[in-house]
Amino acid sequence: MENRQEVEAFMRSVQDEICAGLEGEDGGARFAEDLWSHHSGGGGRSRVIAQGSVFEKGGVNFSAVEGELPSFLGPHITPGAKRFFATGVSIVIHPENPFVPIIHANIRYFESDQGDAWFGGGIDLTPVYVVEDQVRAFHGVLREVCDSYRSDAYARFKEAADDYFYIPHRGETRGVGGIFYDYLRPGEAGTFDELMQFTRSVGRAFLPAYLPLVREQKVKEWTAENKQWQLIRRGRYVEFNLVYDKGTRFGLETGGRVESILMSLPLHASWIYNHKPAAGSEEERSLALFRKGMNWIGG
Amino acid sequence: MENRQEVEAFMRSVQDEICAGLEGEDGGARFAEDLWSHHSGGGGRSRVIAQGSVFEKGGVNFSAVEGELPSFLGPHITPGAKRFFATGVSIVIHPENPFVPIIHANIRYFESDQGDAWFGGGIDLTPVYVVEDQVRAFHGVLREVCDSYRSDAYARFKEAADDYFYIPHRGETRGVGGIFYDYLRPGEAGTFDELMQFTRSVGRAFLPAYLPLVREQKVKEWTAENKQWQLIRRGRYVEFNLVYDKGTRFGLETGGRVESILMSLPLHASWIYNHKPAAGSEEERSLALFRKGMNWIGG
Repeated sequence: MENRQEVEAFMRSVQDEICAGLEGEDGGARFAEDLWSHHSGGGGRSRVIAQGSVFEKGGVNFSAVEGELPSFLGPHITPGAKRFFATGVSIVIHPENPFVPIIHANIRYFESDQGDAWFGGGIDLTPVYVVEDQVRAFHGVLREVCDSYRSDAYARFKEAADDYFYIPHRGETRGVGGIFYDYLRPGEAGTFDELMQFTRSVGRAFLPAYLPLVREQKVKEWTAENKQWQLIRRGRYVEFNLVYDKGTRFGLETGGRVESILMSLPLHASWIYNHKPAAGSEEERSLALFRKGMNWIGG
Repeated sequence: MENRQEVEAFMRSVQDEICAGLEGEDGGARFAEDLWSHHSGGGGRSRVIAQGSVFEKGGVNFSAVEGELPSFLGPHITPGAKRFFATGVSIVIHPENPFVPIIHANIRYFESDQGDAWFGGGIDLTPVYVVEDQVRAFHGVLREVCDSYRSDAYARFKEAADDYFYIPHRGETRGVGGIFYDYLRPGEAGTFDELMQFTRSVGRAFLPAYLPLVREQKVKEWTAENKQWQLIRRGRYVEFNLVYDKGTRFGLETGGRVESILMSLPLHASWIYNHKPAAGSEEERSLALFRKGMNWIGG
């Protein structure tokens, strides 16, 4: 089997696994599927959940597309490359209950016709209210996955997530981070098989990283005040995704499928002028933790 | 009086006029004022209205700031320029009732220490439900203002608004347009006095262009379905402002006052995956009118 076929097959199967796991945890709603074609080759399988008993809105999207590269290639692609292949799974889940964190994950693989190839991805958590023990457990799962690839990987990829999921105009991280990596090239960052194994581990870590805290949090009762804080934090999520997220902007600018790209946006979000959490409140406490360089599980 | 002082004095007074007019129409809420200083000189007077009986959220912001220019100046500024002065009034109003359109307006003036100077601005309307007669009346007020400046100004500035307030990834305009102009330089696009006069006319056209349709629309009763369509259209407004609006992006990237810049975002907005208005509905009818090149008041 060619490399790209092996990656694509895994992406399809992990999408199935993750959708099944989330449906089980939700206990009500099912994912609805949209198949779509890319204008220059390949396509995708968007799966969206809506109005579940836990998950208000979310998507687990698979795609495998090919096409012409733009004439300006940037620093990562060998000059002269004309065509690309890219496959991946992209996940954003917005729960209804303000105590259940938003989660985002992505695993992807890229090839050009000049022999360029790399893996990228990551998983990061965006709680509205931070429960430290759960954040430690979440980072612990990610560290274990990273350790099986390289001993310094967790530290590097955790720092990259802090840097990436940052909202400069707010001086806040989007949430409590996770891991983020890109341009892991076979031959440079490991063999293809090692990188494929790491990608499998990241994809399969999604459910064990996320479901335990969903289970603990989904039974908590929330007030109108909790919901308001969630809507405000979702507003920040929208700000990050539309202003800074490279995948979102690249997708919108290059004619990607809008509904698949913007499935990351929540059902409802709010902006209140100059909102400041009350002194001593849980909201203020959580906000203070949305910072780069938090050391959740020790060095 | 120096030019910049004359512009700044007008900006302050038109902010007062517009706030008073909007408060009168709202009949309940008053604008709250925040004074702020720019890090390198000058500052602003942000005025925000919230939870009014008509206006759910809105701002009428005045600023007059000076500072150092960045080293990359772009094509509009004479090489060697080191400092700038900029003053303006910026308005976004989000009504509660889905039948009352969102409105945006901006008038501004820029100077560099190398003698560059220009005026820019515009007014545009974003109805959730389009009432054609009202859109014609709105464009009629703007045409009158433009005609008093140049006979071809309305056609040019109306086209510029269509091009500017456009959401490429949706293939939709933000609303029904209006006028948009920039880089009107004294000596090139008229004398300073002529351009100052045009700026006064645009600023003073805001209330006569907007209040009549607020008055007609605010008494209409709305359903949960109307509110949902409003929240979806507000989502598109957020997409435009965060992804494409140059002022928003420039402000966020250069350390502008975040709360003043993002006062343009609505209190609540929604994103529903793959939403399509029902065939034959009012929502579908309105959506079909969010197109470039609509000829609202004849050629």
